[in-house]
Amino acid sequence: MHVSVKMQECIQECKIGSQVCLVNVTHCLEKGGRHAEPQHIRLLLDCAEICQTSANFMIRGSELHARTCGVCTEVCEACARSCESFKDDAEMQRCAEACRRCAQSCREMAAMAA
Amino acid sequence: MHVSVKMQECIQECKIGSQVCLVNVTHCLEKGGRHAEPQHIRLLLDCAEICQTSANFMIRGSELHARTCGVCTEVCEACARSCESFKDDAEMQRCAEACRRCAQSCREMAAMAA
Amino acid sequence: MHVSVKMQECIQECKIGSQVCLVNVTHCLEKGGRHAEPQHIRLLLDCAEICQTSANFMIRGSELHARTCGVCTEVCEACARSCESFKDDAEMQRCAEACRRCAQSCREMAAMAA
Amino acid sequence: MHVSVKMQECIQECKIGSQVCLVNVTHCLEKGGRHAEPQHIRLLLDCAEICQTSANFMIRGSELHARTCGVCTEVCEACARSCESFKDDAEMQRCAEACRRCAQSCREMAAMAA
Repeated sequence: MHVSVKMQECIQECKIGSQVCLVNVTHCLEKGGRHAEPQHIRLLLDCAEICQTSANFMIRGSELHARTCGVCTEVCEACARSCESFKDDAEMQRCAEACRRCAQSCREMAAMAA
Repeated sequence: MHVSVKMQECIQECKIGSQVCLVNVTHCLEKGGRHAEPQHIRLLLDCAEICQTSANFMIRGSELHARTCGVCTEVCEACARSCESFKDDAEMQRCAEACRRCAQSCREMAAMAA
Repeated sequence: MHVSVKMQECIQECKIGSQVCLVNVTHCLEKGGRHAEPQHIRLLLDCAEICQTSANFMIRGSELHARTCGVCTEVCEACARSCESFKDDAEMQRCAEACRRCAQSCREMAAMAA
Repeated sequence: MHVSVKMQECIQECKIGSQVCLVNVTHCLEKGGRHAEPQHIRLLLDCAEICQTSANFMIRGSELHARTCGVCTEVCEACARSCESFKDDAEMQRCAEACRRCAQSCREMAAMAA
């Protein structure tokens, strides 16, 4: 099966994004307060799951990967915005960066297939 | 948490769609020949996974469920077309019907949130 | 593919268990306090995921489903105990019941294949 | 959250195992013949899924990760044996190696927690 360098990079960003979001579910629950608000935790869980699904579509070589990359871009952007709002939390800033990189890579994959 | 009747139905259709597609991966591999072609099996796997992801977004009450429902609609339609091409296979026809129902339900969810 | 009535029931219990646990992640985050403690939320997420994985092994007709059912039994029991500790919360009691039913069904599947 | 070096390695092996197995589903379907037999494809799918689940338990810092690592060890071993039987296929040999490494790492994680 042929996987381009760009796609291999995107798979990698999605796997990193998924892991960082899931790690931070636990981090945020331990912090409590605003960190543990339903909407924020839900975004982390949403992002972890769609990143994994998006990666799996690319790994299988699915023709429909552009569509999952498209929605992954949006979920990652929303998650990044939520994480960025915790300005004094280095973990959240790192999570936001991983989500932004994943969004950027997924956006390119979605555009290439359009 | 509040889940509308429409959403509860959509969750149910997604769970049925996911199960029917995954059951038919084994069915198609056992049949062999055109049933086991990579593109068809991949669509069944894609559909099983995005149905599950889409259901989970709704179950969590995610605000972004309309986006996953949107892509689920497209994957289900593609999978249904592939299944419908096996005209003499009752299993494939049933799978196509489940995918069409799931696509219809997801399309309505996506439209409601737009 | 041949799926016994017992297995079909177990698939169903796993799917219910997964959904109930995931719905209650949001419920517990909204309640906050002890409901939102990391260990409890994590058990709900663990249980939702292993129930889904266990169901998928059975749906695929995998020979190794007894092993995933075995670990699903343990995770469901742990999740049920955690939910039962919220004595005044009807949602948590319902979640515990779903986990207990799923654990019982998975235990039987694991024993049948041993 | 504290994740030991050993656990971080195991998460990595599980993620590699999951990806390699899923890539090889497409490879094996394209090869056809014995490569596309239901039992072999199913093992690749089982292994991809339990590796992902096992990784997620560790990423969440779940106390029950030793149990998912235990079943992951067995599924990886079964998948490796199946892949090794394709003696002239370098892809299958690489997949077997990834599964063996993941099994070894998961076995150590399961033993540490016992």
